[in-house]
Order: sequence, then structure tokens, then C-alpha cells
Amino acid sequence: MAKLRLQAEPLTRESFALYGDVVERDGAAEHDINSGKIQRFHDLADVVVDTDNGGRPVVSIAYARITTTMPVSIPMVERHPLGSQAFIPFSSLPMVVVVAQKTDEPVNPHDLKAFVSNGKQGINYKPGVWHMPLIAFEEGQQWLIIDREGPGENCDEYYFENDEIVVFV
Amino acid sequence: MAKLRLQAEPLTRESFALYGDVVERDGAAEHDINSGKIQRFHDLADVVVDTDNGGRPVVSIAYARITTTMPVSIPMVERHPLGSQAFIPFSSLPMVVVVAQKTDEPVNPHDLKAFVSNGKQGINYKPGVWHMPLIAFEEGQQWLIIDREGPGENCDEYYFENDEIVVFV
Repeated sequence: MAKLRLQAEPLTRESFALYGDVVERDGAAEHDINSGKIQRFHDLADVVVDTDNGGRPVVSIAYARITTTMPVSIPMVERHPLGSQAFIPFSSLPMVVVVAQKTDEPVNPHDLKAFVSNGKQGINYKPGVWHMPLIAFEEGQQWLIIDREGPGENCDEYYFENDEIVVFV
Repeated sequence: MAKLRLQAEPLTRESFALYGDVVERDGAAEHDINSGKIQRFHDLADVVVDTDNGGRPVVSIAYARITTTMPVSIPMVERHPLGSQAFIPFSSLPMVVVVAQKTDEPVNPHDLKAFVSNGKQGINYKPGVWHMPLIAFEEGQQWLIIDREGPGENCDEYYFENDEIVVFV
């Protein structure tokens, strides 16, 4: 089995643009609401759902049962062809993501990119973007999830059979 | 001007059901994802957007510039007829909301209800529910907003001319 070392790079809107949105205040367009009491950093994630096909956006909370220590091996990636999927951390904790651009199977391990957030960033995967399942650097870490529910098959998985993908931050 | 004292009651799914959803882990249906590493508390808010009319869901961040101390006077309420609107706090801080069931104008002050959250709860207003603008108990408090953008007029305001509404927690 070939071992592939993936070094996570800092997550930025620009570096992540192929894969989706970075949900963060820094650099976002903002305006005052509520007589200036509140700033609104507006329209940070492109929520895509196949409403024509009976899909609907759903809001959920993810809660980490266990801590994952780095480096971590990634046996598989998954994708959701029918909708986007956002993970926005409640607390200021970094997260690591591994992605590959929308492709058909098989996924080429050399197309994978790893990113690590600065703790104040969430991410929103475009529909069909391959990504590693969510892991937490701390047990009890929580995220808000905004994704899609509805009819049809919305989760493909791809297991790497010939490569061990190891992610470093 | 008549003074109306509104005492906030604890926010619960049951007490808030007429007005919308309470976004919280407590009491929510959950299942394991990612080989049991993560719990998913599923489908906590009914995101309603008039996609047939060009509306789309948008994700934004609200940041409080100033602290509001209680009790607070509420000169007006607003409503968004074309979509739901969720405010989900990032940090564990309580929030106060004042609502009235979907009605035509004028809003009867005696229909107002006030709720205070336990710090681990977000809320999602149904389309058309009158509510007070967001305030913060602490400067720097942040919320994720999930609401609607698109064509058409989606914000009505109603000012109380004959009553001073004072909210206590």
C-alpha cells in the first residue's frame, strides 16, 4: 500500500474556492442592522438544494464524541451530489478538511487537498465535492450543519484501496 | 402612553411552537455518523424560503456592536413574510426574544410574548411571525443567521404608538 502524505494548508476563501465557501467574518461584506446595534456579515455560503426534486435544506448540530489526534489516516471520502453541506463550528477551534474536486470515481489520491482552519472559519462543500468525514480536535466540539434532506441517493463513498492517505497539520 | 410589562418566560420547544423552532440538542432526535465519532442532532429548524418566487436561503453572521441591558423597551416589531429566519448563537449566552403570532397589522401589544433562552438554544422564526430585532446581552456576541434573500418586499415593521413595551428577564 502506497503511503501518501498530505500536508494541510491554511484555509482561505481563495484556496478553497474550487470546493466551496469559507464561512467567516474576515473579509466578508457587512452592513449594519437594528439601528447599528448589530453588524450583519451577509451571504457567506451558497446553500444549494434540489428543491425541484423534493429536497429541502435542514439544520442540524454535530457533536464530537471523541478527540482525533493528528496525523490522521483517511480511509475514504464521501460526496453529496444533491446538495451542499456546511459545517460551522460553534466554538473557536480549528478543523481539518480533505477535499477533491467533483470527479467521477475512482478518486485519484493525488487530487486530494488538505486544509486547516484558523478556528474562526466554517466551510460549505459544493454539491458533489469529495470530502473526508468530519473529525474533531476536541471531544465535545460542536458544529452547525446546513445540508439537504429529501428523496434520492445523496451519499456516495469512495474507499482508497491502494493508498494510505495520512494528513498532517 | 400605556406601559406594558412583559416578563420573559423560559424558552422551550413547546412554549415557542406557535412562533417557530428552538434549535438545541436537548430533546432532539439524534443518530451516529462517521463510524460513531460524531452524533448528529437532526433537522432542528424548518427553513422556509419561497424558491418558486426566486427566493434562496442565505447564511450570514450577526455580530453585536453593543451590550443591551435589561429591562429593555421595544418600540417596534418586524416580520419577514417570504421566509423563515434563524438566529443561532455561537457561544453559550442567553438571548431574549419577543414575538407575536402571525397577524395583520395593527399588532396588539397584548398578543406579545417574551422568552429567554438558556444559552444553548437558537431560534427560528416562522415566516410572518412578528418579532423584536435582535439584541445582545454582551458586546461581541455572535449568531449564525439562516434566512431568505430574493425579489419582493420581505420586511414589514410595526411601531407601537400608544404603548411602551418593557421586557424583563
